[in-house]
Amino acid sequence: MPYPPRRAAARTLLREVAPGLDALLVTDLVNVRYLTGFTGSNAALLLHVDGDDASRFCTDGRYRTQAAHEVPDLPLLVERGSARALAAAASDHRVQALGFESDQVTVDARDELAEAAAGVVLHRAPGLVQRLRTVKDEAEVTALRAACAAADAALAGLLADDGLRPGRTEREVALDLENRMRDHGATGPAFETIVAAGPNSAVPHHRPDATVLRRGDLVTMDFGALVDGYHSDMTRTVVLGPAASWQRELYALVGAAQEAGRAALAPGTKVSDVDAAARGVVDRAGRGEQFVHPLGHGVGLQIHEAPLLAATTAGMLAAGMAVTVEPGVYLEGRGGVRTEDIVLVRDGGPQLLTTSPRELLEVG
Amino acid sequence: MPYPPRRAAARTLLREVAPGLDALLVTDLVNVRYLTGFTGSNAALLLHVDGDDASRFCTDGRYRTQAAHEVPDLPLLVERGSARALAAAASDHRVQALGFESDQVTVDARDELAEAAAGVVLHRAPGLVQRLRTVKDEAEVTALRAACAAADAALAGLLADDGLRPGRTEREVALDLENRMRDHGATGPAFETIVAAGPNSAVPHHRPDATVLRRGDLVTMDFGALVDGYHSDMTRTVVLGPAASWQRELYALVGAAQEAGRAALAPGTKVSDVDAAARGVVDRAGRGEQFVHPLGHGVGLQIHEAPLLAATTAGMLAAGMAVTVEPGVYLEGRGGVRTEDIVLVRDGGPQLLTTSPRELLEVG
Repeated sequence: MPYPPRRAAARTLLREVAPGLDALLVTDLVNVRYLTGFTGSNAALLLHVDGDDASRFCTDGRYRTQAAHEVPDLPLLVERGSARALAAAASDHRVQALGFESDQVTVDARDELAEAAAGVVLHRAPGLVQRLRTVKDEAEVTALRAACAAADAALAGLLADDGLRPGRTEREVALDLENRMRDHGATGPAFETIVAAGPNSAVPHHRPDATVLRRGDLVTMDFGALVDGYHSDMTRTVVLGPAASWQRELYALVGAAQEAGRAALAPGTKVSDVDAAARGVVDRAGRGEQFVHPLGHGVGLQIHEAPLLAATTAGMLAAGMAVTVEPGVYLEGRGGVRTEDIVLVRDGGPQLLTTSPRELLEVG
Repeated sequence: MPYPPRRAAARTLLREVAPGLDALLVTDLVNVRYLTGFTGSNAALLLHVDGDDASRFCTDGRYRTQAAHEVPDLPLLVERGSARALAAAASDHRVQALGFESDQVTVDARDELAEAAAGVVLHRAPGLVQRLRTVKDEAEVTALRAACAAADAALAGLLADDGLRPGRTEREVALDLENRMRDHGATGPAFETIVAAGPNSAVPHHRPDATVLRRGDLVTMDFGALVDGYHSDMTRTVVLGPAASWQRELYALVGAAQEAGRAALAPGTKVSDVDAAARGVVDRAGRGEQFVHPLGHGVGLQIHEAPLLAATTAGMLAAGMAVTVEPGVYLEGRGGVRTEDIVLVRDGGPQLLTTSPRELLEVG
């Protein structure tokens, strides 16, 4: 079980960055899941610095059975308002100074917690669990790898079965990809699948519609699989038929930018430098204005996690981070290209978790 | 377009409950969608009491084209940090007192807004748009009806095609229902589909797994369709084969509770009384302890919206509210029954949006 070591790491971090706190009230459900394994929709965790015995997990009556199964190793409290209930119980657990996730708790909810936690002083403690979550442990890498594999297999199957052909609609292709990911072990898509054909491929977040794929189109597919709560995220742009020279040029440019971005992924590198490495390639080709989004983002229990690979992000990469690298160049009205993989940052050099080929594919 | 009238209603409400405010900063994405029609993942709205011309809609560069298409009727600002950008721009728009959604904005985000909004005083203004959203307009009822119809059709098709039979797994049935909803116009499931067979049906939020359906099982299916951003939500429990007398009894009890709940849905009725009407039926049968959740909830752009039909909810029903009515009784280790419809509260009596039959179905 990876959860006790994760809680131990959270305690160490808590002592380090907020030495006066007796406990952290974890209310963000994803953070709760990370620290406990609980997958229901209502829960909170009072993580006491003294250890699991002094800690409390809380959920409501609907999840009593599930909690016993998923979180057998923490004392359980059953209450509907789980965050409030744990705040109220904090003083019984020798908590005087209680950290709360100020980046997750709303202004109104904070007041409710303060009211419930009589005699306990609340302190802001934002982003602690998220910081731990940036570095993936073995169980997480396994899940991410499975999620990437489901997406890779879906694309390979789609291409092998001639599923990407003129006459189909974007929506049909999207549904096809999603069904194939399920066939390969996904519980569902990791996010709303994007299939964007022809001029639509110039819209980075185009939602698949009844647009019919036509010969000569650039077709961008941005999709991912959800496996054991972990999200994969990949993008490939293909051409239906022989590529025109502008398409080929655009594809090569994005490919070079993506390679530069991946090559820059090393522990200790400034996150903003990774974005700059890829963006520089596009800038030098005079297309910087058409690369309208950050280079990538962390990915795991959420589709978008820290670190955001952007010019404005502070901080450095660390071994074990899993990030997307997804430069795109978009020519409005004509079409766009984006290539995206998930890459694991490692001491020995970056490792691709996405394994689909990246060469320009001229389909049919 | 339903959006200008919705914004007008929001202004009226704002003037009424917070007469000193010059504008409301809408940052919750669902509220932004409700007021503008925008469906992207980053946006905010500065809703000025003086009207749309004084208001501003903000999103980032990825969504420039989409915003022009979806929100043609509001002045556009393009910035990545949309809430912050609008807070910073507020003073240029004659805003001195700015309301913010204190039930949605985190403690840390509030500080960022305050820092950006130099010279502007922030005031809490929680739940205003949610309050409007409880009463559905015509466009919303149309979308909800379509979402309900997709789920109804999926269930009818599943039954007609003998899709609910011993030997299939819960997961297969769940996927089958989801695919059928898509065939009937859903963009996807409204939430994680529940299929729970035999003893699993006693777990209200059981997640479908490899459990095989067997003759004699109670099988609970709780599922819904997403159509145009609107969620449907329905539950039926059936028996595979002839029902045992305890199953029949349980089913009749839940049916009577559901009918009592639906009958209590009238404008002006206290919300808590609706829960009490259904719960009383179960209580009198000595099974109150086994009805472990509230009676229902509002539904619309989110799967769970106000009002929560619970004993602890204050306030009254109003015409135009759309709510689920979903009593359930659960016998641990044996099985449970839940019946759920979406019902529209109206002056002339409640109207069912879910149209599937509610009689006990003995399948096969």
